[in-house]
Amino acid sequence: MKTSALSTLGRRTALPPISWLMQTALTRPKLISLAAGFTDNATLPVEISRRLLNDVLRSPKTGRPALQYGITAGETHLRELTARHLQKLDAADNRAYLPERVMITGGSQQLLYMTLEALCDENDIILVEDPTYFVFLSILQSRGLRARGIRLDRDGIDLVHLETVLERLKKSGELPRLKALYLVTYFQNPTGVTTALAKKAGALKILKKFERAAGHPIYLLEDAAYRELRFAGDDTMSALTVRGAADRAIYTGTYSKPYAPGARVGFGILPEPVFTAVQRIKGNHDFGTANLLQQPLARALASGEYDRHVAKVQRNYSRKARVMKQALAEHFPKSVEIWESGGGLYFWARLPKGISTGMKSKVFSAALKNDVLYVPGGICYADDPSRRKPDHEMRISFGSASVENIRKGIKRLGKVLKKFVK
Amino acid sequence: MKTSALSTLGRRTALPPISWLMQTALTRPKLISLAAGFTDNATLPVEISRRLLNDVLRSPKTGRPALQYGITAGETHLRELTARHLQKLDAADNRAYLPERVMITGGSQQLLYMTLEALCDENDIILVEDPTYFVFLSILQSRGLRARGIRLDRDGIDLVHLETVLERLKKSGELPRLKALYLVTYFQNPTGVTTALAKKAGALKILKKFERAAGHPIYLLEDAAYRELRFAGDDTMSALTVRGAADRAIYTGTYSKPYAPGARVGFGILPEPVFTAVQRIKGNHDFGTANLLQQPLARALASGEYDRHVAKVQRNYSRKARVMKQALAEHFPKSVEIWESGGGLYFWARLPKGISTGMKSKVFSAALKNDVLYVPGGICYADDPSRRKPDHEMRISFGSASVENIRKGIKRLGKVLKKFVK
Repeated sequence: MKTSALSTLGRRTALPPISWLMQTALTRPKLISLAAGFTDNATLPVEISRRLLNDVLRSPKTGRPALQYGITAGETHLRELTARHLQKLDAADNRAYLPERVMITGGSQQLLYMTLEALCDENDIILVEDPTYFVFLSILQSRGLRARGIRLDRDGIDLVHLETVLERLKKSGELPRLKALYLVTYFQNPTGVTTALAKKAGALKILKKFERAAGHPIYLLEDAAYRELRFAGDDTMSALTVRGAADRAIYTGTYSKPYAPGARVGFGILPEPVFTAVQRIKGNHDFGTANLLQQPLARALASGEYDRHVAKVQRNYSRKARVMKQALAEHFPKSVEIWESGGGLYFWARLPKGISTGMKSKVFSAALKNDVLYVPGGICYADDPSRRKPDHEMRISFGSASVENIRKGIKRLGKVLKKFVK
Repeated sequence: MKTSALSTLGRRTALPPISWLMQTALTRPKLISLAAGFTDNATLPVEISRRLLNDVLRSPKTGRPALQYGITAGETHLRELTARHLQKLDAADNRAYLPERVMITGGSQQLLYMTLEALCDENDIILVEDPTYFVFLSILQSRGLRARGIRLDRDGIDLVHLETVLERLKKSGELPRLKALYLVTYFQNPTGVTTALAKKAGALKILKKFERAAGHPIYLLEDAAYRELRFAGDDTMSALTVRGAADRAIYTGTYSKPYAPGARVGFGILPEPVFTAVQRIKGNHDFGTANLLQQPLARALASGEYDRHVAKVQRNYSRKARVMKQALAEHFPKSVEIWESGGGLYFWARLPKGISTGMKSKVFSAALKNDVLYVPGGICYADDPSRRKPDHEMRISFGSASVENIRKGIKRLGKVLKKFVK
């Protein structure tokens, strides 16, 4: 008799690679973690949240509804405000921004999960950036989905490579298994890269070309989780603004990162028939995200308090990114290539090829011995048999560490790297 | 070209039968809904929640953590308090109540969903009560799982029938597809039935007997969502108290129903390897339930405020159930069999066989015309080819309607029924 009655998914779902890192960070008090993707404790809207929750619970109109069941797709007012918020960010005026197409979820993570449930059968294929957000890769792994990596330039994916990969899938007869291209388009996790609008438009055009051979729509799944954590440069418009994209672009965003992860509210704009499928799936998951989280957020958006808080968060990260940049210039060997970012939480460091940064590497254990932690770049690459996984990179975050710890941490890491890199 | 790239699950997931009912309730202001499973607005802990959220957000120890990311399985203190809470309810002292085995989720609905993900491949079989909780049936439908109904007596499932069904599955060679028996053990939705402890023990024993033929463990999935809404009789112990059940009983409960659905916090106690699988799946869904919901709940549990509030809720439902009972005695035809309950939110009414209560029935449309709504019993029966679905029953809820509306609603419904029933 087997000891387990687990499903294929239950048996397959792996321990997330990051959990060991997080465990390590928790057990070593002197350790400076440049690994965590947490937001800065110092900028959490504690006082604002308290005030808004008081307002919500004091009001006869919102007090009880905040503690009662609501609507599966989300609280009506928050959906309206979210549609308006996105339309404002995109400075757009098209049919994509309808409140009826907005879905409110338990962070954007839940929306990514449910979108994959709605679109993908086992063995289906998703194209991802090379490298990409590793928890998305965990979902693919768990659900038995295949990923193919598309090379990433400093302004988004390499469109020539995208077309090459699509041609290859067409030739091998696998194109009918392809469901979507997943792009983290703003201050990407892990590289900090922002995808240019022209690249989004180009990708949509290329995907469209292959739809006939696929036999069905191929979606652009745009994950804009870090969009509002911008502190330099202008905002880029989303794929929703591309002409003819309304029925092919799925946009996911979140109020967690710019506002409060502990309140975990994400959102998305989805075209039919994906919206309806996800709405039904959401009904089976949890009948809708907790109203007590949605109501104060709606107030923050309506009153402008949300925007003011985000501006404050941006200033804070801007400062910390500047500190990290200076420290990197001072302490890192010159042969390490740094991709700095105008937003988000991460810088990306590329060591000379051949020097591994993986969890079992000499660099990693030396860093740990010197009480500093980073995310090894290797875990951000999909299992794609067509190339070897690069493992000479690292993600360094200025998100949760203090200014002082950023300086110290980079100094420690630089000292380690100088032992291995010229 | 197909117009849809949806997965099998995405295409299969049906519109929940209840959504039409809820839509109807929202659009007819004069309608009295005895259909909704909502809790009573009047007893929502608005002031308590406000006070506790203030305490949480004012405290330096909890303020920021409440708005930050947390632990996937749930906030440590809440897991400890939940383990203790359950142990107290069960008046037990065994190894089942370890905080490390407690999982905190977005309502118990999310935990039911993830448990099915962890246990079941497509076409696997779950045994359910006949009738059972219809949103659980929606999950089964969506995920391509098969259900087999076990007859329900007034004190839980018919154990002889359970054994018969298991024998039949063994003979047909389908036993290896069987993963669990799902029981809503307290004031069941929809019938109000509470399962006797002896029945839980008996079911566990019978399941065990068939494990060798199944080739793997067969779990008892105990859904105790309504347990704390008890206003008559003594509490029944959970399956966790049955000797040798620690590795076969999965217990799910919720703070939503007795406390606040809008704060949507559920919990469970799971044996290995189910716990680990569900924890990893939860990581992919949402990294853990929002801390801002968990922290005030932990305070309410620790301070005794939770218990005091639950006692108040119980008194309120007790009164409403009494009113419904009197109204039923006064207005319903004597040939309608009423199953009243000592807790929960529902009474179950059984019309003489042959009189349909379904959404397309004369009874249902007459009720609607008279502005009163109930849940047709038929939607609570699984698709089980071995029997016809009974459709002569109805679930009537005293949960969200006011005392006055309970009286009026039952009077209206009684008037309707008298036209069809002697």
